[in-house]
Amino acid sequence: MTDKELKQIIVNIKGADKKAMAEAKAYADSLAAPPGSLGKLTDTAVRLSGITGKLKNSMDYERIVVLCADNGVIEENVSSAPKSVTISQAINMTKHLTGMSAIANYFGCDVEVVDMGIDADYNCPEIEDRRIRKGTGNIVKEAAMTREEALTAIATGISLAEKAAEDDVDIIGVGEMGIGNTTTSSAVLAALTGYGAEEVTGRGGGITDESFAKKKAVITAALQKHAPDPKDPVDVLSKVGGLDIAAMCGVYLGASKVRIPVVIDGFISIVAALSAVRLCPAVRDFIFPSHVSEERGYLIAAKELELDPWLNLSMRLGEGSGCPLAFQVVEAACALMSDMATFEKAAINDDYLTEIRKL
Amino acid sequence: MTDKELKQIIVNIKGADKKAMAEAKAYADSLAAPPGSLGKLTDTAVRLSGITGKLKNSMDYERIVVLCADNGVIEENVSSAPKSVTISQAINMTKHLTGMSAIANYFGCDVEVVDMGIDADYNCPEIEDRRIRKGTGNIVKEAAMTREEALTAIATGISLAEKAAEDDVDIIGVGEMGIGNTTTSSAVLAALTGYGAEEVTGRGGGITDESFAKKKAVITAALQKHAPDPKDPVDVLSKVGGLDIAAMCGVYLGASKVRIPVVIDGFISIVAALSAVRLCPAVRDFIFPSHVSEERGYLIAAKELELDPWLNLSMRLGEGSGCPLAFQVVEAACALMSDMATFEKAAINDDYLTEIRKL
Repeated sequence: MTDKELKQIIVNIKGADKKAMAEAKAYADSLAAPPGSLGKLTDTAVRLSGITGKLKNSMDYERIVVLCADNGVIEENVSSAPKSVTISQAINMTKHLTGMSAIANYFGCDVEVVDMGIDADYNCPEIEDRRIRKGTGNIVKEAAMTREEALTAIATGISLAEKAAEDDVDIIGVGEMGIGNTTTSSAVLAALTGYGAEEVTGRGGGITDESFAKKKAVITAALQKHAPDPKDPVDVLSKVGGLDIAAMCGVYLGASKVRIPVVIDGFISIVAALSAVRLCPAVRDFIFPSHVSEERGYLIAAKELELDPWLNLSMRLGEGSGCPLAFQVVEAACALMSDMATFEKAAINDDYLTEIRKL
Repeated sequence: MTDKELKQIIVNIKGADKKAMAEAKAYADSLAAPPGSLGKLTDTAVRLSGITGKLKNSMDYERIVVLCADNGVIEENVSSAPKSVTISQAINMTKHLTGMSAIANYFGCDVEVVDMGIDADYNCPEIEDRRIRKGTGNIVKEAAMTREEALTAIATGISLAEKAAEDDVDIIGVGEMGIGNTTTSSAVLAALTGYGAEEVTGRGGGITDESFAKKKAVITAALQKHAPDPKDPVDVLSKVGGLDIAAMCGVYLGASKVRIPVVIDGFISIVAALSAVRLCPAVRDFIFPSHVSEERGYLIAAKELELDPWLNLSMRLGEGSGCPLAFQVVEAACALMSDMATFEKAAINDDYLTEIRKL
């Protein structure tokens, strides 16, 4: 994909259908509950209508797309886990043995594991091979990837969302697996927002004080070396990002293109969402939060996106592990619109309605 | 039930099984994820083991018990909704037409609607008749009920939990329906904690500024008139509480007695939970939060109970509406324990394990 082709896709992404949202809001207000008392469930139902154009929606087919890739920066000792964990856990996901995939399987969600750049040889046909290269460059020494590679990763993400639409998927969750990717995500977040490494960087999967200091120094050094252009998210992703983050960014763009709601997981996932919204502000209409990640940069990205997450489970696993529970929240929102009685049907006193509508 | 009989029940409630919890914690730590990265899901799984004594649990049968009652205090104009809404919505719940019951039905949760003191004549055999009296006294003028009535309501709640155990219910949610019950709950919370009406009182289902000022004045007046003894929750419940809150308190006690995990909904539900824990501190081991209610007193009660809720959906509906989604969180916790691979099975490098166990 060329820059021009990406721009063409972006200009064709239209935001939420305001008329459908207004109709959904009016219907939600007619349901037998004190106005506003169903909070974010109502907001979610209304936004779903803005995405699909339908008053009542159902989430029959849910898919978590997991973008997997290795990161050259791990040679700087920024992670306690070895590179081999990326491929081990990618394989384990196809067997529903990891945290995210165990929960997803329990709730009947599809898990699509995609190799965007795993640095290992393996034999696992259940992993979808979209590998662009075996791992990225070490961002302290060189760009993570070329601009062309970043554009190809984004295009791959877009095509995965298009495939979901062809498969009649109703909602997509965006997960990842890639040792070292809290380092690259922190670098991308810092580059996009202007915050320093000190503010955006957390301890990822868990590291010593020494490695944590090293991680922040590495991020600062990479940003100084490459000076990525904050107004050009493709430049940022290619210089200090990763193949996973770039592809995730593409999934958000693609989901918006095909008008499928898309759920953010934790830190890496929300940094990719921020990249997508910076490329195309209309994407904001299609994304939903799941949980507050414990990783400290999460809240910075959430504030930039004006997203108020639904779950607070003190999790910091990644993988897409917040998505299956977020899908249940979306399903609850759909159930309200489909099954609740209106005030009229609920046989609730007219005087009360007159009264509360004055509030 | 006499005070002596209640005391006998309370002394026989034993807390969580510490040995089962230690075993569950050790097993959870062996699962292939960075230590602590599954946050409250792991904590929940461990506490479930402490309740049931089993390492792996499943939530196959979930029930929301909804205690319904009217409150004499509504003659003071503290609510915008008329009394008739209590019976209308109780009937609608049996048909899965209200907010809570629509979501519960969607997720396959049982809803048990119990009349503890609805002030209406009706014909709805699906509502369980445990009515103690038709509504309570207006707490500004008289005690809500006698001590004997409060003890009977608590005993009813205990028996509902015992029935759930007989029915092989795996988890109970505690909901309510009763116009005026944010007023009585605020009064109970103030009495138990020493906070003033200004701090514990919110706008409930929605009221004008004038009614809101009246509501706080009513709570202050009721507390002054009755001076309920904060060390005697039965005294507090009988003087300024309600038949719904007293029965809910009984459900928490009963669930702890029969060792079934029990989920709190919003404000009224958490005030009842606080009453139960004040009567019997071991109950704390059996209760789980669901969502942060928008009603301002919720956070005061949550802090008293040291509970950190899982969901933040800006809801203030009551009914038990937070319980079905909380059940999904508990189910996710169970799925992790049942289905995730251990580090050994996940074929993850031994050096990594040595490394992260040092952190």
